[in-house]
Amino acid sequence: MTARANESIRNGVDTDTLFATLNAVKATPAAGQFQFRASNDWISGTHSRGTIHGFFGVGEERTHERTFRFDADHPAVLVGRDNGPTPVEYVLHALAACLTAGLANIAAARGVRLTEVQSTVSGDIDLNGILGLNPAVRNGYQSITVRFTVKGDAPADKLRELVEQSRARSAVYDIITNGVPVTIEVATN
Amino acid sequence: MTARANESIRNGVDTDTLFATLNAVKATPAAGQFQFRASNDWISGTHSRGTIHGFFGVGEERTHERTFRFDADHPAVLVGRDNGPTPVEYVLHALAACLTAGLANIAAARGVRLTEVQSTVSGDIDLNGILGLNPAVRNGYQSITVRFTVKGDAPADKLRELVEQSRARSAVYDIITNGVPVTIEVATN
Repeated sequence: MTARANESIRNGVDTDTLFATLNAVKATPAAGQFQFRASNDWISGTHSRGTIHGFFGVGEERTHERTFRFDADHPAVLVGRDNGPTPVEYVLHALAACLTAGLANIAAARGVRLTEVQSTVSGDIDLNGILGLNPAVRNGYQSITVRFTVKGDAPADKLRELVEQSRARSAVYDIITNGVPVTIEVATN
Repeated sequence: MTARANESIRNGVDTDTLFATLNAVKATPAAGQFQFRASNDWISGTHSRGTIHGFFGVGEERTHERTFRFDADHPAVLVGRDNGPTPVEYVLHALAACLTAGLANIAAARGVRLTEVQSTVSGDIDLNGILGLNPAVRNGYQSITVRFTVKGDAPADKLRELVEQSRARSAVYDIITNGVPVTIEVATN
């Protein structure tokens, strides 16, 4: 990353805008109410296609600048055709991306310039759960490990502290570690 | 979907292979131990790129047929540049894809031909949590709702029962509703 002339931009984060946004939500807490969405169309077998476009936030309906579409499938070893990652891999991707975005924001806010952030997330899962072969085995991951490599113009302790603060404020980390109630509705006509 | 001549293929699922896989894991439970992975490289600000390729399963290291790469970012209203969906939207996508894949498999195994499966997942989140403005507000979604439209050659009750069984065996539903322990390690050199 190249440092820009504008002092308010650090790690590609416009800290003036970041603090302005923070203050705007502080002044009007209702602006912080968001709803995100994804839709999905089944294609064949374990293959489906997700679409992400509209969301609600800061009091109104909004859309991303373009429509994002992502295929999901199972690999052949799990009786699919490998047209996309498995759904559980998307969960790991989401966790890494959330912790990384938070880290860049927090480092920028605290005056630390990052030069590299790389991570690998792995999740251990025993398919005896989803296959219904062992009622003692859960369906989802038994554990997830995130390994970060972080470099920047701060001592190692400070860089670790930034990752810790990102963890403490990560939406996806909270979703995955603490759980969220999910309601499922079905229409058949 | 067009019904194929081969009776074992239903909903694009080769049920012979599905049952053979099930029986193989039943005979050798250790074959069900999988590890999935995603890596992530920070680009700038809230923009990062995830890579999904290798995984471990059925006793050995494996790879997807190709390498999947997905960008994540925040929209402008959340101080990003909208180069990809937000991490929390990827979580919703994963949930829809997991429930849909399970539904197709379960319907195939039970002899039901599906003609349409469509879903929309929405997640409500109050950003006063991640912005650190209100300690009573969690960082992640407060609730998630999945709305399915399912059509096929079975009565409405049967189609609903298939969705229910998919929920009961979904890895991502379990991860999101029940939580998973996450460990974070940081290297700074």
